[in-house]
Amino acid sequence: MQAEIITIGDEILIGQVVDTNSAWIAQKLNSVGIRVKQITSVSDDKEHILTALKEAHQRADIILITGGLGPTKDDITKKTLAEYFGVGLVENKAALANVEAIFRRIRGTLTELLEVNKLQAMVPENCEVILNRNGTAPGMWFNYDGRVYMSMPGVPHEMMYMMEEAVIPKLKAAFSLPHIIHHTILTAGEGESYLAEKIKDIEESLPSYIKLAYLPKLGQVRLRLSGYGGDGAALQKEIDQFAARITERVGKSVVAQEDIPIEKAILNFMAERELTLSTAESCTGGYISHLITQHPGSSKVFFGGAVSYSYELKESILGVKNETLWQYGAVSEQTVTEMVEGALMNFKSDYAIAVTGIAGPDGGTPEKPVGTVWIGVANKEKTVTKKFLFGNKRQQNIERTAIAALNMLNILLKELK
Amino acid sequence: MQAEIITIGDEILIGQVVDTNSAWIAQKLNSVGIRVKQITSVSDDKEHILTALKEAHQRADIILITGGLGPTKDDITKKTLAEYFGVGLVENKAALANVEAIFRRIRGTLTELLEVNKLQAMVPENCEVILNRNGTAPGMWFNYDGRVYMSMPGVPHEMMYMMEEAVIPKLKAAFSLPHIIHHTILTAGEGESYLAEKIKDIEESLPSYIKLAYLPKLGQVRLRLSGYGGDGAALQKEIDQFAARITERVGKSVVAQEDIPIEKAILNFMAERELTLSTAESCTGGYISHLITQHPGSSKVFFGGAVSYSYELKESILGVKNETLWQYGAVSEQTVTEMVEGALMNFKSDYAIAVTGIAGPDGGTPEKPVGTVWIGVANKEKTVTKKFLFGNKRQQNIERTAIAALNMLNILLKELK
Repeated sequence: MQAEIITIGDEILIGQVVDTNSAWIAQKLNSVGIRVKQITSVSDDKEHILTALKEAHQRADIILITGGLGPTKDDITKKTLAEYFGVGLVENKAALANVEAIFRRIRGTLTELLEVNKLQAMVPENCEVILNRNGTAPGMWFNYDGRVYMSMPGVPHEMMYMMEEAVIPKLKAAFSLPHIIHHTILTAGEGESYLAEKIKDIEESLPSYIKLAYLPKLGQVRLRLSGYGGDGAALQKEIDQFAARITERVGKSVVAQEDIPIEKAILNFMAERELTLSTAESCTGGYISHLITQHPGSSKVFFGGAVSYSYELKESILGVKNETLWQYGAVSEQTVTEMVEGALMNFKSDYAIAVTGIAGPDGGTPEKPVGTVWIGVANKEKTVTKKFLFGNKRQQNIERTAIAALNMLNILLKELK
Repeated sequence: MQAEIITIGDEILIGQVVDTNSAWIAQKLNSVGIRVKQITSVSDDKEHILTALKEAHQRADIILITGGLGPTKDDITKKTLAEYFGVGLVENKAALANVEAIFRRIRGTLTELLEVNKLQAMVPENCEVILNRNGTAPGMWFNYDGRVYMSMPGVPHEMMYMMEEAVIPKLKAAFSLPHIIHHTILTAGEGESYLAEKIKDIEESLPSYIKLAYLPKLGQVRLRLSGYGGDGAALQKEIDQFAARITERVGKSVVAQEDIPIEKAILNFMAERELTLSTAESCTGGYISHLITQHPGSSKVFFGGAVSYSYELKESILGVKNETLWQYGAVSEQTVTEMVEGALMNFKSDYAIAVTGIAGPDGGTPEKPVGTVWIGVANKEKTVTKKFLFGNKRQQNIERTAIAALNMLNILLKELK
């Protein structure tokens, strides 16, 4: 079963936005056994969209289209699809009700809709409408000449919700897809080649129908076992056994046995044990708190914390001593120790994380170059601090620091067992 | 002058990597007046690459290809290009010397090259080699049937260097390029269709060689004017005039006259005036601080703040009164007022932002459903608060709250003028 993804929009072709939708869609499709043959990005141009649709028709069984469904006149996907299928546009009652419901929610009351808003409910007459819970542009599913065409909005969260809630289940129902089982082991703190060397013999003993992929991401590597075909239960058992062998071998770098972010694994672990957490962030500027609080239920574990960018806030909120800052500097073992212990005491949590460093691009010195970071994690019994030297890219330094800090917290938490 | 970008590699089609190269290349091409007609991603498959090349030949004058030039056997771009052009492969002396130089640099001395490394210097005999200063795979420039084909490595920094140093200058020399000018106006707080309605007559009066695009993103819309062709200075002047008309019409929703994030526009404005900022975040959990601190130089403006998830931290760090929390609740005008004024006083900044709300998915009540958010912004003279009702998606509520808060701050700052 082969798919093609067509993304429509001038903003992609002038490089104003990076097309992240396609990679996300490709992952979802692959996870249910649909291979993506091609990804095509075209401009908001009728003839060009028609050509792309015709070419995709030759190559693929499933054609997923994103973008060009907005209410303004540069959005022509819908009209072009109607022309491609040789049908007219009709008003869809459910789509109109959805537009009205969204405007009612936004404005508190339903005032007269603008003409452009009503146009959002017009769809090609041969389509099945897939409601958009997060926006006014409906999704449209077409069965045509033995292929499935699915048109979705280009706004990522609208498309994602639609894919997960409707499109993937419908594709599963429409096609007989091969069996694929994935098992992901999240590791942190070790590089891809180190891990590969460590589990070389296990990897070599994998049967042909089980593949191992290394998916590295700043400071973390996901090891993904994928099994294809045959008897589901036997395959699952075999994958579980390989996962257990790899986990035992890799040891304390293992963070989770599922494809979740490291902070979510920590939240799950702490919530089960009714442990609480606070943070004191300097160079990460709130990024660690943000990672934690994006997850539902984080308030059970997370009390909050300080983003102490200035010396003054390090002193006033965290109780770092003025002489420590001036004697050792804000980026030092002494300061991070006072920060993490200050957070623990002032915010009254069981565990705390503190980071202080030079994210760059400015602020480096010969002794403390850009990328120098001190991280501290602590509970009532123990404070652990560690110095890191990352690179010279600000964004990456922020992300690497956050992952390293979460990894240190994870290791400290695992001492509980 | 039209270009097509072809990216080759299975890793893109399984969604393992996001294709960031294409957006980068598209930006570079647009900046010198080359429009990108299509971006096509295909797998490491000979027949499929040949088809993609033939299709691109129909559409484009310039075909830029990335990926598939590595030394391993799944990299087949070079052989496939030779087949496409009907030529053989020959060893290129300069490319071989480059491979040797790179290995000498890595190892400190030149030991015998592996056969796979030597193969890196084999190129189709009709190409002009573009040396790769950052890697062993040479770039290859082809003049063929009135088109330019350029094959580059997929590793971003190798490709970027090659584009900037060699490809862009060669394209400029080879073609007489038209002028393209973009101007982006960032707006916040109003929807796409509202804006479209408001500037309808201006949009309709645009000449055919100036296009207006709406680029919406949670709570923000970028309006992008693009002008094509002719006399550069006259076009620039005309675009400036339309931008000024749109800006005047849209009024206080306008945040910036360039394509930058809202928090960066605020940082620029505040840095110029030596104003300082702090934050008190509940439901955004550090996201606002993170947005601000990802930008270099933010420490000149931003002191830091509190992530006060719990009642206790709202009291202890921000000085919110216990009775306020119990009488009105954490999500209330009274609480957000005490939070923002507490931040201003305790953190000693000129301006402060505070947010408190129910991000969801749990925690809603009939009177305060999920998505209810109170935002406050303040300076020494004035505190402004506003209630919002967003949706039921946690991530979106966090992002929308952040953008709404930054927009309120922006409006308060503009009162300075």
